Amino acid sequence: MKNIIIASTSILHGGDYLDYLLPRLSLHFLNCKTILFIPYARSGGISHEEYTSKVALAFAKINKTVKGIHEFEDAAEAIQNAEGIFTGGGNTFLLVSQLYKNKIMTILADTVKKGTPYLGTSAGSNICGLTLQTTNDMPIIYPPSFQTLGLIPFNLNPHYLDADKQSTHMGETRETRIKEFHAFNTIPVLGLREGSWLEVLGEKIILRGNLSARLFRQNKIAEELESGSDLSALK
Amino acid sequence: MKNIIIASTSILHGGDYLDYLLPRLSLHFLNCKTILFIPYARSGGISHEEYTSKVALAFAKINKTVKGIHEFEDAAEAIQNAEGIFTGGGNTFLLVSQLYKNKIMTILADTVKKGTPYLGTSAGSNICGLTLQTTNDMPIIYPPSFQTLGLIPFNLNPHYLDADKQSTHMGETRETRIKEFHAFNTIPVLGLREGSWLEVLGEKIILRGNLSARLFRQNKIAEELESGSDLSALK
Repeated sequence: MKNIIIASTSILHGGDYLDYLLPRLSLHFLNCKTILFIPYARSGGISHEEYTSKVALAFAKINKTVKGIHEFEDAAEAIQNAEGIFTGGGNTFLLVSQLYKNKIMTILADTVKKGTPYLGTSAGSNICGLTLQTTNDMPIIYPPSFQTLGLIPFNLNPHYLDADKQSTHMGETRETRIKEFHAFNTIPVLGLREGSWLEVLGEKIILRGNLSARLFRQNKIAEELESGSDLSALK
Repeated sequence: MKNIIIASTSILHGGDYLDYLLPRLSLHFLNCKTILFIPYARSGGISHEEYTSKVALAFAKINKTVKGIHEFEDAAEAIQNAEGIFTGGGNTFLLVSQLYKNKIMTILADTVKKGTPYLGTSAGSNICGLTLQTTNDMPIIYPPSFQTLGLIPFNLNPHYLDADKQSTHMGETRETRIKEFHAFNTIPVLGLREGSWLEVLGEKIILRGNLSARLFRQNKIAEELESGSDLSALK
């Protein structure tokens, strides 16, 4: 049975890394001593080792050990043997390219579908949808496909940002960009504001956190969903 | 000899479509009665016909007629016979996909290199660089390649936006995104603020407009370039 947390962000303004989620994560990863961390989305500034250390520091607060997938000879085996899995944020194009390059996109999807607890934040959440097409990231690498894990039957827009009505900037708003997506695609898109997350238990999908989320569907007016909303029927 | 205007935006806040550029455009397209418009970037809301009408309305102010490329049987021929060419904004992934699908990416590049006056705004400017990898747009369509026209030997980030220091949003700033690009790519990136444009005359590239532009190079500190700067040596 799927057991997944899909979070908009790893960090809230003024907070520490993962802090706001830790109480929930100690339940989510209750039966795990060690979490397998996938740092592939990180593109610069810090190495996979440094990124993994930062994650380990956060998980130490709830008495979990963290191992980076780059520490294993066989990435596929590491995923299949993991007690729990966390994919962190960064650049979604890079993450998707690395998952394909290491031939673990399907293995990761299958493993999580079978019940290994999974946490995604930002880019690690984006890949839970059907495609990466509603990411905010720059296409810094050309991936072999835009298809992602498909753990949920719709797409996400993490770090969802409402239009700033004071702005004089003429670039497209997030809502306009998602509307452009819907000119060519029927997949629903959930704009997850920072501090919101989805809980997936089997086929049940519930919106959590303090904020509402914004749901975009092709040829429909966007709607606000309150925290606690059941998204299981959305597709 | 190349004769190109590459503008960050088609419209300034509070202005009308193309208004701020019209005095410059009447010189740029001095010997053109008719401009060929490429509306391919537009993904929704308005049709190619409506988009072309909007452009025609603006160009009528400087006594130019506009024809949309979709009005021609043979798109390649339309480009080769054009007196002047304008590619408007919208979604860069869509624009690039359409240029490849209609087999005119190379023909457009060759034609503009030979001297047909070209104007790009936003997505139409993005494609003047080497690749689409520094676009702000959502990847709503999977293009056969990220390579673009290569009319200039570097990449652009149109609608360049400085970080808002008051913001509590934890998504990446534009500067961070461009740094991610440089973790894997050596191509310089010019952040063009709204109201700025590049003038390309032969191999000469000059920054125009009232604002400075922000230049990003791999392993170098970003720098501000004043209007009037010569970018001909940048690559």
